[in-house]
Amino acid sequence: MAEYQHILVSRAAETIRITMNRPDRRNALSAEHLAELLAAFCVAGTSDARGIVLAGTGPVFSAGHDFADVAARDLLGVRGLLRLCTELMRTIQSVPQIVVARVHGLATAAGCQLVATCDLAIAAESAGFALPGGKGGWFCHTPAVPVARAVGRKRMMELALTGDVIDARTAADWGLVNRAVPDGELDAAVDDLIARATRGSAASKALGKQTLYAQLDRPEADAYTTAIEVMAAASQLRGAREGMAAFLEKRQPVWPD
Amino acid sequence: MAEYQHILVSRAAETIRITMNRPDRRNALSAEHLAELLAAFCVAGTSDARGIVLAGTGPVFSAGHDFADVAARDLLGVRGLLRLCTELMRTIQSVPQIVVARVHGLATAAGCQLVATCDLAIAAESAGFALPGGKGGWFCHTPAVPVARAVGRKRMMELALTGDVIDARTAADWGLVNRAVPDGELDAAVDDLIARATRGSAASKALGKQTLYAQLDRPEADAYTTAIEVMAAASQLRGAREGMAAFLEKRQPVWPD
Amino acid sequence: MAEYQHILVSRAAETIRITMNRPDRRNALSAEHLAELLAAFCVAGTSDARGIVLAGTGPVFSAGHDFADVAARDLLGVRGLLRLCTELMRTIQSVPQIVVARVHGLATAAGCQLVATCDLAIAAESAGFALPGGKGGWFCHTPAVPVARAVGRKRMMELALTGDVIDARTAADWGLVNRAVPDGELDAAVDDLIARATRGSAASKALGKQTLYAQLDRPEADAYTTAIEVMAAASQLRGAREGMAAFLEKRQPVWPD
Repeated sequence: MAEYQHILVSRAAETIRITMNRPDRRNALSAEHLAELLAAFCVAGTSDARGIVLAGTGPVFSAGHDFADVAARDLLGVRGLLRLCTELMRTIQSVPQIVVARVHGLATAAGCQLVATCDLAIAAESAGFALPGGKGGWFCHTPAVPVARAVGRKRMMELALTGDVIDARTAADWGLVNRAVPDGELDAAVDDLIARATRGSAASKALGKQTLYAQLDRPEADAYTTAIEVMAAASQLRGAREGMAAFLEKRQPVWPD
Repeated sequence: MAEYQHILVSRAAETIRITMNRPDRRNALSAEHLAELLAAFCVAGTSDARGIVLAGTGPVFSAGHDFADVAARDLLGVRGLLRLCTELMRTIQSVPQIVVARVHGLATAAGCQLVATCDLAIAAESAGFALPGGKGGWFCHTPAVPVARAVGRKRMMELALTGDVIDARTAADWGLVNRAVPDGELDAAVDDLIARATRGSAASKALGKQTLYAQLDRPEADAYTTAIEVMAAASQLRGAREGMAAFLEKRQPVWPD
Repeated sequence: MAEYQHILVSRAAETIRITMNRPDRRNALSAEHLAELLAAFCVAGTSDARGIVLAGTGPVFSAGHDFADVAARDLLGVRGLLRLCTELMRTIQSVPQIVVARVHGLATAAGCQLVATCDLAIAAESAGFALPGGKGGWFCHTPAVPVARAVGRKRMMELALTGDVIDARTAADWGLVNRAVPDGELDAAVDDLIARATRGSAASKALGKQTLYAQLDRPEADAYTTAIEVMAAASQLRGAREGMAAFLEKRQPVWPD
């Protein structure tokens, strides 16, 4: 795999692990860090892996944008940084793999945005979540985009306007993560979830994930128009055929891809 | 009422009960079964009933599409089946009656879609909910449309991508059903909810339900444009007039329809 | 401040309190009452206050529209009343101040709509919430617009179709209010929340709040387009610069506005 300065990339069986590795900078998302993450997701996206785990080293998951990088930029410079960051978010949702965030510590600002953006997320009980721009400096406008779509409106307003941290149990209750688990069970819970979310035909899962994002924020009638066409086409794929045949023949399926 | 092969239709007082009755096929939704359900909802929709209960016989509520029916179809054949299924979902939301799903057992794939689509739903504690296409065969693209609109985004992703079953308490917590009740209290809970949801002016309720679906997935300003016009017109109906007069005169209303 | 007949307006430090004061009419929203609330929010919106608390006197928060005012109106008259009411809702969301509803008692119909519309809301445990048009008279079409966007779909249907009251704990669980607190702690909880939600740069908060509403019900890609441009521009404001400088210099920020 490519050589990176700020991240670690490894693969075990069907899962690629992308690890933010700037522990001394609280995994802050400088332009270089974002570019490496984007590159790693693009490369992983073209691989035959079925799942991607996004993790971090050190005491926090990610503290979001790197103010040392932002503070020196003018309007166009910041705009370019935010467009790069958004491109990373879009890529996480468009790669065919299922992406699970493994949140072991604090996830704030664009770090919280990463958690909201990943398809699934497991948090250790000691993790926390915040949009600290709400404390009154640089408001977390772009992080609020996926956070608003993960939690209810009043809760989003509280997160975005106060900047205060919610704990992992609250994040699970609000739907920002799928569940909060004791710290010592984090890896087992991530492994379990990604195994369940990636089993079966990889082509079926990729179509499934991508169509979910395509239909999610459309009016319901438009969403059906898309979903019907994809589902009809998907019925002709080998994975769907095998799944139905195995069911009808009362045997275990043998997935073709 | 019409003669059906796959469903039972009965009426008690103001409520029509439509019961999926293919217990040996786990109430699988073959084209013929879907067509009968669609016909029954269309007929009920033109009746003077105030409520419709959707129920099932046998051990499960509904297992979704009938693979014996799907497996033999080509692309256009499956597309037609899915369009028929979607037409049923749209009809459930467009009939003037309030529709309550009575979920006594497992509701999976298009069976889970039915629960998400009905206006209201009560589940027995032993019921379960899943989008089993997530196990890797034929992905539940169209069932995910109303499920995504009922539960939060991370929860929808977990249901759709893993295919695993959630229990009734979890479904109530996530907002997929209105509540989970002990199995022995299911009918009483359904009766109670439909009585509360259908009381008063039937014309008012029909306008109310249909306008809710019209405004739900519009931007808020557009939603208001629609809601204002309907509510202004509705204020002139006899039901609204009677409701206001009874309130002002401190007496019980006598609903006109 | 202006002289009002139906409301009280006061200011303490950075917070303006607007209090519905028709206790004998259960703070019903007659046209005159709505017009005063609209005026008060417009005036407050041009002030240098950072927060607005919406409260009520007497036993209930607000019972919604005043049937004595509605019952005599024809179609165009009711339409005008609803347009005025909607203008109030839009103003609450467009003023630069953070608006917190202090809900001490029952909030029904347009009173419940006010709670759903305010940026944040704290309820006393003895408060209750309902869309009583669901009991069968004049359906709560416009109140359902923000309620539908605050709670899940099945819960919105239950509120709108049954008209029954949910208690404050349920409202907090469903996301209609941020939290329910013991009655004796209501003012302390409101003060705490508004202090946290208004601290820091007021310009940053105003841009933040207004951009949240601008992006909330847009498709995610459109939401990002807006959020990126605002956030890039906001990075050049003095508040953002000071927040980043303070962070990098490990000192407390001194907010410029």
